[in-house]
Amino acid sequence: MNLETITFENNTLKIINQQALPQEFSYLTLTNLDEVIEAIVGLRVRGAPAIGIVAAYGFYKHVESLAETDQLRRELVEAAADRLIQCRPTAVNLAWAVNGMLEKYRSLQGENKTRLLAGLKAMAELIHAGDKETCAAIGKYGAELIKDGANILTHCNAGILATGGSGTALSVVYHAFNSGKKVHVFVDETRPVGQGARLTYWELDYNKVPATLITDNMAGHLMQQNKIDAVIVGADRIARNGDVANKIGTYSLAVLADYHRIPFYVAAPLSTFDVQTGSGAQITIEQRNKAEILKFWNVNGKENYQVYNPAFDITPNHLITAIVSEKGVMEKPDSTKIQHLIQTNF
Amino acid sequence: MNLETITFENNTLKIINQQALPQEFSYLTLTNLDEVIEAIVGLRVRGAPAIGIVAAYGFYKHVESLAETDQLRRELVEAAADRLIQCRPTAVNLAWAVNGMLEKYRSLQGENKTRLLAGLKAMAELIHAGDKETCAAIGKYGAELIKDGANILTHCNAGILATGGSGTALSVVYHAFNSGKKVHVFVDETRPVGQGARLTYWELDYNKVPATLITDNMAGHLMQQNKIDAVIVGADRIARNGDVANKIGTYSLAVLADYHRIPFYVAAPLSTFDVQTGSGAQITIEQRNKAEILKFWNVNGKENYQVYNPAFDITPNHLITAIVSEKGVMEKPDSTKIQHLIQTNF
Repeated sequence: MNLETITFENNTLKIINQQALPQEFSYLTLTNLDEVIEAIVGLRVRGAPAIGIVAAYGFYKHVESLAETDQLRRELVEAAADRLIQCRPTAVNLAWAVNGMLEKYRSLQGENKTRLLAGLKAMAELIHAGDKETCAAIGKYGAELIKDGANILTHCNAGILATGGSGTALSVVYHAFNSGKKVHVFVDETRPVGQGARLTYWELDYNKVPATLITDNMAGHLMQQNKIDAVIVGADRIARNGDVANKIGTYSLAVLADYHRIPFYVAAPLSTFDVQTGSGAQITIEQRNKAEILKFWNVNGKENYQVYNPAFDITPNHLITAIVSEKGVMEKPDSTKIQHLIQTNF
Repeated sequence: MNLETITFENNTLKIINQQALPQEFSYLTLTNLDEVIEAIVGLRVRGAPAIGIVAAYGFYKHVESLAETDQLRRELVEAAADRLIQCRPTAVNLAWAVNGMLEKYRSLQGENKTRLLAGLKAMAELIHAGDKETCAAIGKYGAELIKDGANILTHCNAGILATGGSGTALSVVYHAFNSGKKVHVFVDETRPVGQGARLTYWELDYNKVPATLITDNMAGHLMQQNKIDAVIVGADRIARNGDVANKIGTYSLAVLADYHRIPFYVAAPLSTFDVQTGSGAQITIEQRNKAEILKFWNVNGKENYQVYNPAFDITPNHLITAIVSEKGVMEKPDSTKIQHLIQTNF
């Protein structure tokens, strides 16, 4: 797949500006912490792994600018880390990547500026390169679950545009497609901000994978007609028991898949697992602005309109056929299997 | 409820222009058959009962104009009836109303122009007045199913704006509300054209009924949190066995309600029952233009984008807790009960 969501060349961080897609395919240069935070909050970059990578580079660029202006003080670095972690509360990779950078920073406290910066840069690049490998491994394992001729439903965007590599859910699709299997993807438009319509369809089209766009309320109708063979989604956070936080609407799809006896797969890297969180009930659900929904219907002026706009929902482990990670396929996820997976790999 | 979707005064047919809602609340005068058909196809008026009433008045206005221009020939009248019936294939009330007008026309063949036109006008007014009574009766019976303090989920618009009276599904809400029960409505925005966001929310707000707008993919999440006590929707067509054709997304809600053991009610007049159709499998699902979906995401230019855009889906009878008609509440609808209901009332 010949597409890079995040590039870091000549010490310059660039991202595909996802708010301009699909009309305009262009890169945005992020030069400082404020621009990185604005890009994450403004959804110019989104997807748990991609946010983590951009935050890691953003952390490095911020430490570099503090060093250049002789303000390299621990409390300023930690404050920057806090700001980065706070800007999207649900995606666990963000905290994972930033904390990794902070740990690296602490471990390099005795070093001179040049070595400190080189160490942080290498750490951010390692997180990025690691994600590429992770995506490839998820794709390889997941593709074995996909039958030739399969119609696959996906929600939101868990693709190239969500990661530093070939994606999570869509990496599975790309690997199946590239191995010669005939696949076709039904793409949920994914209200409110349309990551399916704007991003997933765009990247599948860019990579010549056959796809059909639907609205979120059509999935049940397609399943009823036996037109969906598998559902594959990504995850923003996976609790210790296998409950999955993902884009709002994922839970409905899982219930519909269960009712129609269609396999429901979650594809996510180990960095998405949050073993500190026992179950989905403990995951904070980000509530977003009502304007995001109202602007579609020319009711922006109607300030009295009540709107409920949660960004995520929780899919309980018992509705998940398998979780595909870079370590393989875990059927019927539960606490025991997840603790074993995490303990074996960290 | 102090709002009229369709008015017929001084021989003039007016409708609320629903394409201008919610920003602009205005009436549109329909002077001839082409304007009536354009209003129906262009969704300026929608909702099975409302379409039937407008088509009945449109039929009368067309016969009047044929009479005025000395073209009153049976084949022209029948061609007009055909054009009206064809403009929305799923809504059975349209054919029901137009065929009623055509029968009236045939029964008045021996009469002079004045009597013929007076008879047709009275017939259209009777269909309109009958719908008002029907809506009130549906509301009265349905309100008994609504508990004080209930959170009700509805999809699309089955309200005042869909009928010649107080609505079907929303008539139930209005009757519960007006009888002093505390009710709150979660309104699905209802992609692709947003009848929930644009119409249902607007008319509930107009009538001061507490409501919250959600996107279609949030219903499952709300049910999971026990925030929905009942689902009430309208119907475009009900087959002899109780299978219901309604706006796309209705089937998904029915499955979700079943999974969460939440009652799922369909509110519809007898004119929505189509005893010629044995089951939902025989109902033609209207496929709509892909631009309707793409225009929201600035991908109108992308002519190669594949989009699936069915207007309706079929909810099987076993997922329906009860159908509320103007004759009362029918629990667990099936062929026997429906045939009995129809035979008793026609």
